[in-house]
Amino acid sequence: MSVPQPTVRFLRIDGVDHDPEAQGAFAADRGFAYGDGVFRTLRLRGGRIAGWARHARKLVADCAAIGLAAPDGARIERDLADLGAAWPECVARITVTAGSGPRGYRRAEHTPLRIMVQAAAPPDWPERFAAEGVRMHRCALRLAWQPALAGVKHLNRLEQVLARREWDDPEVPEGLTFDGDGLAVCGTMSNLFVVEGDVLVTPELTRCGVAGVQRERVIEWARRSGRACVVEAVPAARLGAASALLLSNSVIGVWWVNRFDGRDYQRPRWFDELQHALLDERL
Amino acid sequence: MSVPQPTVRFLRIDGVDHDPEAQGAFAADRGFAYGDGVFRTLRLRGGRIAGWARHARKLVADCAAIGLAAPDGARIERDLADLGAAWPECVARITVTAGSGPRGYRRAEHTPLRIMVQAAAPPDWPERFAAEGVRMHRCALRLAWQPALAGVKHLNRLEQVLARREWDDPEVPEGLTFDGDGLAVCGTMSNLFVVEGDVLVTPELTRCGVAGVQRERVIEWARRSGRACVVEAVPAARLGAASALLLSNSVIGVWWVNRFDGRDYQRPRWFDELQHALLDERL
Repeated sequence: MSVPQPTVRFLRIDGVDHDPEAQGAFAADRGFAYGDGVFRTLRLRGGRIAGWARHARKLVADCAAIGLAAPDGARIERDLADLGAAWPECVARITVTAGSGPRGYRRAEHTPLRIMVQAAAPPDWPERFAAEGVRMHRCALRLAWQPALAGVKHLNRLEQVLARREWDDPEVPEGLTFDGDGLAVCGTMSNLFVVEGDVLVTPELTRCGVAGVQRERVIEWARRSGRACVVEAVPAARLGAASALLLSNSVIGVWWVNRFDGRDYQRPRWFDELQHALLDERL
Repeated sequence: MSVPQPTVRFLRIDGVDHDPEAQGAFAADRGFAYGDGVFRTLRLRGGRIAGWARHARKLVADCAAIGLAAPDGARIERDLADLGAAWPECVARITVTAGSGPRGYRRAEHTPLRIMVQAAAPPDWPERFAAEGVRMHRCALRLAWQPALAGVKHLNRLEQVLARREWDDPEVPEGLTFDGDGLAVCGTMSNLFVVEGDVLVTPELTRCGVAGVQRERVIEWARRSGRACVVEAVPAARLGAASALLLSNSVIGVWWVNRFDGRDYQRPRWFDELQHALLDERL
C-alpha cells in the first residue's frame, strides 16, 4: 500500500517561509484545504467525559457520512485519557480529517486519516446563565438544505460563523437559526428543545443542522423519565406558543431561554433534574 | 489593540504530542477549525499569472463576502513573485483565513488574518484533454442554496469533495453539479459555459456555486470579440440542446466537453482562439 505524499513544495505563512517537509503535511491537510473532516467538542470534568460512548459512535457515524473510514477509537481514548490526566477540567476537541493529500477535491486512495486532539480552557460564561436562563438572538441567516450533510458535525461551519456575526452582546450567548421554509433548526452551537405542556419537541435535522450528542442524551433522558419527546418539524410560530425553550450541547449541558423574539419563557419545573442527569456518565 | 491569543494548551496529532506554543496557532486556525476563510488557485507560467488583477480583486471580494478585512495585497504579490522566481511552472494556492482565535464560532476582534501561499506541481492531465475534449460525469449530489455564500470560493468545500467521490475514471476529469431545482451550476472544480449557436450561456450563481476568475475572463473575452454571452438559469434540458459545453478554471484554462450524459458535443470553431486568449495576461 503506497501512501500518497503531500505535494507542497513552497510554503509561506504570514510572510515567513516554512519548511514544506516539516509543515507541508499540515498545509496539505484536507481539513484545512476544504473542510474535509468532522469534529467533536467535549467537556472534561474530573478528567472524564459524560456520554463518551455516544461521542465515539457519533464520530464514526459522521466519518461514514462523508465517506471516511472509522478513526482509531483506541488511540483517541488514549489521547483523551492522557489529556484528562494532564488537564482534568477543559474543553477538548477531536478533529478527524481526510489527511494530507494531493491538491484537488478528489481524495487519493490509501491516505491515512489525521486525528488531532486539542484542548482549551472551559468558556467563562457567567454562572447565572445556567441558573437564570439566557437570552437568544433570532438569526436572519437561513441554513441551506443539504440532506447529504444534514446532522453531521463536519468542518464546513461558515453558516454558523456568519450567523454568529449577527449579534455581539455578551449577555446573549446564543442565536437560533431557521431554514428557508422558516422552520427552526438549531442554535449556532446548540440544539433546540421546545417545551409544549409536558412534551419536549426537537427539530428534525434531515435537511440541515447538526444532531448533537447532547440532544441524543436529552431525548434519552426524556425516554427514561417517562416524558414524551418528539422529533419533528418546528415552524417559527410554534416557538411563540411554547412554555419553554431549551438549548443543549456538550459544553453548556443545558440552558433554558428566558427571552426570545420579544417573548418571555419559563424555566421548566424539571430543569434541575435534567441538568443533573446530563452530568451522569452512563446517560 | 490587543491581539487575542490562541488558547490551545494540549495538542496531539496522530498520536504525537506537539508543542502548543509552536504549533497551536495552526491548530487554532479558524480556517482549519471551521473553514472560516477563502482561497485562490492559480497557474504560474514562466513565473507569471494571467489575470492576476482579477484574482486580487476576487480575493478581496470573497473576504468581504464572509466579513473578513482585505488581506495585504502587496505582501501576497511579494510572496507570489518569490514563488514565481523559485518555481516558474507550478500551481499556487493562496489561502486567507480568519486567523487563530479562541474556540467558538464567534470571531474575536482584532484577530489578524492568516495568509498562506503554497505551491504544488501542475496536474499531470493528458495533453489530449485540451485538444480532444473531455468526458464529463453527471453528479447526483445536489448543491444547496445558500445565497449568503453563493459565488464565493470559501473553504467549505465538502459538497465538491462528495460530488468528486461519485466517479473514479481517470478519463473523466470533471463532473457537473446541479441544484435542487435541476439547474446546472458548476463543475466540481470549474465553471460551465453552454454554447447555443454562437451564444455562450453560463449559469447564474446567486444561490450556489463558485464564480471563478476564469469564468469572468471568458465572459470578458466574449465581450471583446463581439460574441454574445449571457448569465442566466440553465435547466438540465438546455444542455441536451446545446452544440458545445465548455469548462473553465485557472489551472485548466478551458476544456471542451466531448461527451456528457449520453450525448456527443462539438468543439466550437473558435475554441483555439479562446484558449489562446486566456493565456494573455492582460485579459
